Amino acid sequence: MTVKLTFEPLGRETETPPNFILEIARDANITIRSDCGGKGLCGKCKIIITSINGKVSEVNKIEREHLTLNEIEEGYRLACQAKAINGEITVFIPPESRIETRKVAETILETDVELNPPIKKIHLKLKKPTLKDATPDFERLKSPLGRIETSLNILKRIPKFLRDANWDVTATLSYNRLIEIEKGDTTDRSYGLAVDIGSSKIICRLIDLVTGEELAEDYSENPQVAYGEDIISRISYASKSDENLRRLQKMVIDAINKIVDKLCEKTGIKDHEIYEAMIVGNSVMHHLFFGIYPRYLGRSPFVPAIKDMINCQARELGIKINPEGRINSLPLIAGFIGADALADILVTQMHEKDETNMLIDIGTNTEILLGDKDKILACSSPSGPAFEGAHIKHGMKAVNGAIEKIWFSKGVKYETIGKEKPKGICGSALIDLVAELYRNGIINKRGRFTKGKHEFIIANTDERGTKEDITVNEKDIDNLLVAKGAIRSAWTILMKKLGIEEEEISKVYVAGSFGRYIDVENAKIIGLLPDIPTDQIIFAGDIAIAGASITLKSIQKRIESREIPKLIDYIELSAEKDFNRIFARSIQL
Amino acid sequence: MTVKLTFEPLGRETETPPNFILEIARDANITIRSDCGGKGLCGKCKIIITSINGKVSEVNKIEREHLTLNEIEEGYRLACQAKAINGEITVFIPPESRIETRKVAETILETDVELNPPIKKIHLKLKKPTLKDATPDFERLKSPLGRIETSLNILKRIPKFLRDANWDVTATLSYNRLIEIEKGDTTDRSYGLAVDIGSSKIICRLIDLVTGEELAEDYSENPQVAYGEDIISRISYASKSDENLRRLQKMVIDAINKIVDKLCEKTGIKDHEIYEAMIVGNSVMHHLFFGIYPRYLGRSPFVPAIKDMINCQARELGIKINPEGRINSLPLIAGFIGADALADILVTQMHEKDETNMLIDIGTNTEILLGDKDKILACSSPSGPAFEGAHIKHGMKAVNGAIEKIWFSKGVKYETIGKEKPKGICGSALIDLVAELYRNGIINKRGRFTKGKHEFIIANTDERGTKEDITVNEKDIDNLLVAKGAIRSAWTILMKKLGIEEEEISKVYVAGSFGRYIDVENAKIIGLLPDIPTDQIIFAGDIAIAGASITLKSIQKRIESREIPKLIDYIELSAEKDFNRIFARSIQL
Repeated sequence: MTVKLTFEPLGRETETPPNFILEIARDANITIRSDCGGKGLCGKCKIIITSINGKVSEVNKIEREHLTLNEIEEGYRLACQAKAINGEITVFIPPESRIETRKVAETILETDVELNPPIKKIHLKLKKPTLKDATPDFERLKSPLGRIETSLNILKRIPKFLRDANWDVTATLSYNRLIEIEKGDTTDRSYGLAVDIGSSKIICRLIDLVTGEELAEDYSENPQVAYGEDIISRISYASKSDENLRRLQKMVIDAINKIVDKLCEKTGIKDHEIYEAMIVGNSVMHHLFFGIYPRYLGRSPFVPAIKDMINCQARELGIKINPEGRINSLPLIAGFIGADALADILVTQMHEKDETNMLIDIGTNTEILLGDKDKILACSSPSGPAFEGAHIKHGMKAVNGAIEKIWFSKGVKYETIGKEKPKGICGSALIDLVAELYRNGIINKRGRFTKGKHEFIIANTDERGTKEDITVNEKDIDNLLVAKGAIRSAWTILMKKLGIEEEEISKVYVAGSFGRYIDVENAKIIGLLPDIPTDQIIFAGDIAIAGASITLKSIQKRIESREIPKLIDYIELSAEKDFNRIFARSIQL
Repeated sequence: MTVKLTFEPLGRETETPPNFILEIARDANITIRSDCGGKGLCGKCKIIITSINGKVSEVNKIEREHLTLNEIEEGYRLACQAKAINGEITVFIPPESRIETRKVAETILETDVELNPPIKKIHLKLKKPTLKDATPDFERLKSPLGRIETSLNILKRIPKFLRDANWDVTATLSYNRLIEIEKGDTTDRSYGLAVDIGSSKIICRLIDLVTGEELAEDYSENPQVAYGEDIISRISYASKSDENLRRLQKMVIDAINKIVDKLCEKTGIKDHEIYEAMIVGNSVMHHLFFGIYPRYLGRSPFVPAIKDMINCQARELGIKINPEGRINSLPLIAGFIGADALADILVTQMHEKDETNMLIDIGTNTEILLGDKDKILACSSPSGPAFEGAHIKHGMKAVNGAIEKIWFSKGVKYETIGKEKPKGICGSALIDLVAELYRNGIINKRGRFTKGKHEFIIANTDERGTKEDITVNEKDIDNLLVAKGAIRSAWTILMKKLGIEEEEISKVYVAGSFGRYIDVENAKIIGLLPDIPTDQIIFAGDIAIAGASITLKSIQKRIESREIPKLIDYIELSAEKDFNRIFARSIQL
């Protein structure tokens, strides 16, 4: 017995055994938003069944909790609960359940480095062997290059290749390892790939290793979001079986390969001319990328498999660059502070400064670093997905139709992304709203409405064009304040540990794409950021990719990156004695 | 249209499209002797068609050259010429066309070394991680071991493995590379595999890397002989296509794996407990084993792909030891002087001696080394397969039924291998015979019969039990003298180059299994070996395998092995000015 399911607006048809609609979509590589990974907790995987000529399971208790009666009447279902049983069914994925990504924040902060990549190309015109000089082929190739090694794969190619190329070849070295030989002089074509694997998006940047130029950048959604928006869902899925782990690994590798294809097409570069890749990402993304069992990252005491740089051959992982090229990862700092944070440090250069700087990378987990050239304290705070619109009644990610800015000026004013009709409210606007509500005395420092009402209308049905007003209630404000409190208490504890006050902080770097869109003044009002002059707060953008790029370009930076973790003291917040007290205080406005 | 072919005495049935019988046998992994590799030159692939219910090609011109009328009447054919066309055909492979190997010569010379293998096992009882000590798993494992690396494959296993083993594990290091982790304390089980890939046989020896003991040794025919007894045939076959090269590579790898199976069964050792293998062999066997295109080894200026040690993972080659274990080869010395000669030097220690020593490894190519701790001259002489019975009318390899010793004492006396009725004469007996004929004035110093006859009967039909006498004619003697001359002229040139006389040679080591069975006095009479006191001539046996063994056991010896080639001057005989003159003189008795 099979079901024929059509997904609209994609127009994709599938024929499968009976299954939950979310599962069918996953198998067909169609992404439906599912923050909880399909457990029936988040209610974000709403779909609309627009036609049935067959059977779908009845609306269940979980769906009744997450859907309004109106929605149920309109055919709304939760894709993780509704089971397609037989016949022909058409499913419409509404915009709010689609996964789109906002344009990657520009990287504002870039650090120039002296170009000295481990990848070097050397053009060689070798003498032909004679009876008087019967030096073996590899030793002949090696003599102008010094002490090099190679793989059996390259070695096997050498004898015929040297003769076919009439002894005129270009050798590509990765440090002292010969990874490629090409005919003639190709020394002007040498490329590297920087990759930032985020929980929600993957960014790749193509670097010219001859000029140091950044040639192109592209990104895509991390397709693993189909198995949960948050990393804990992905850890739990991947830990269930080797097959699951391989599946998540393959998803991210396939996604990277697709971006590489696009970058190559855009630039006219061939994939085998990319001789190295540098990967950054949080610890879970890092483990999943390399196919390392991630279970112990997700349970106390949160131990990664390895912290030091990993390197392996592109061939081993199936990354579509030169198969002999190395895939490297920057080192991790701790279980919850990944290679992305290390990349952030490299770019901000806070590890070289006399002054004390702070770095905040806001996300579901927010990493905070505080220190100078002698010592950096680091912690990770489980700030949760409130800033991404999760657990907020009308919350949504920063995609088209999301209200991204709110200000009060003769009533509530707002701007939406893409100038569309508002569909919901995203993190940056929530911060604005709470700041305005507080400034205007509509809520008190605990986030309670002062005049007994329970919700605040931002946009009504007329403006919205759909059935419901866009509102924010006390529970939503609570969720935001808890998220803010998690971050504030984290940097408060770090400052306390280091014995410094807010005014002693030279700069606060706000990294990550979220940081890019928030209003500093409002962020200071709600207490998300330390209260220091605005010109000392720097929105650095997605700097992790910039960190990956500079380590592709510089051996020195790569050595530094392996030294930085030694500077860092990881602070486990939950193990801090006065954590609860500080957290309670940090929630308040 | 298919043919059903049965090979006797094996009782193996095959069903194939029409093809030459030799090809059908090869495809079915049945070895028929074929010195020339199936070109119709050697006449050694005789088979007997014992029944036909179908069609076989007519006896052709080549077959008529190699077969007597008697043989043709009895159904003898050359397997490389006779084509099975259709029906059911039974083929008998007579003993002279089967490939059997004489028991491997014992290794007489063994060199003791201080046990210090690169493979080390270390038992670790690690502390469990806690919130206060969340050191990553690999770093935890690494801290008692120092600066180690590992592969992604091992890294992926570590997190779960450490916890399953309750943090009580044994780490196996190969130099500073972690190649295995095992539960509990397994430090008493650590093994290495020495492999000598000869053109005609493959020897494997299992070494206990904890005690240094040699646990077991076994060998088999090199199955590549089906593609030619001599290395030139194999080079030419492998150079035809990548597929051919892979086929020869696979043959030798499969053969090694079978021997490993036998050794493991015999000793109760598991293949994954063998953590390293060391390969020796001549340059062609070396290239074919690693799958390196061998064409340029076989044509002037005879250039190998690489001379230095190769190492790769067992996994890459499919050798059945621990998949992460290293497969190493000893360095080559030159195109025609392989890793086996280097192993010979290591065992005889001639590279450490004040006195001048000579080493002769007799084979189809004979390697000769002469020198001391300051300098060693090396050359390779194409002595040809006469010592293995090829191009000798009744010549045969040293297998059961071969006359292996001849002496004159009231007529011709002889001994056969396995005390069987004589089937032919092998190399050692040919030397005896020529020496006796010369000593008794039956031939002159040019190898001509003094009394006008043209052949000498060793065994007549009565003794033999078959239709023909076993005889030696002037052409056979010529072939032997040419082979002898090739070797004699080689060491004469080396001595001249080094400016020494025979009496200055301290020792002559005769390596290889052939050397093991020759009579020293007779070898000196015919001029194969220098005329020095017999007690200074040492039959070392198959010492190449001993050389492989000591480099498994000792890092120091491995370093030495990479230094030895620097001591060696390779002499290309054909480029020597007075080569022809010396060769002409060396042929004589």
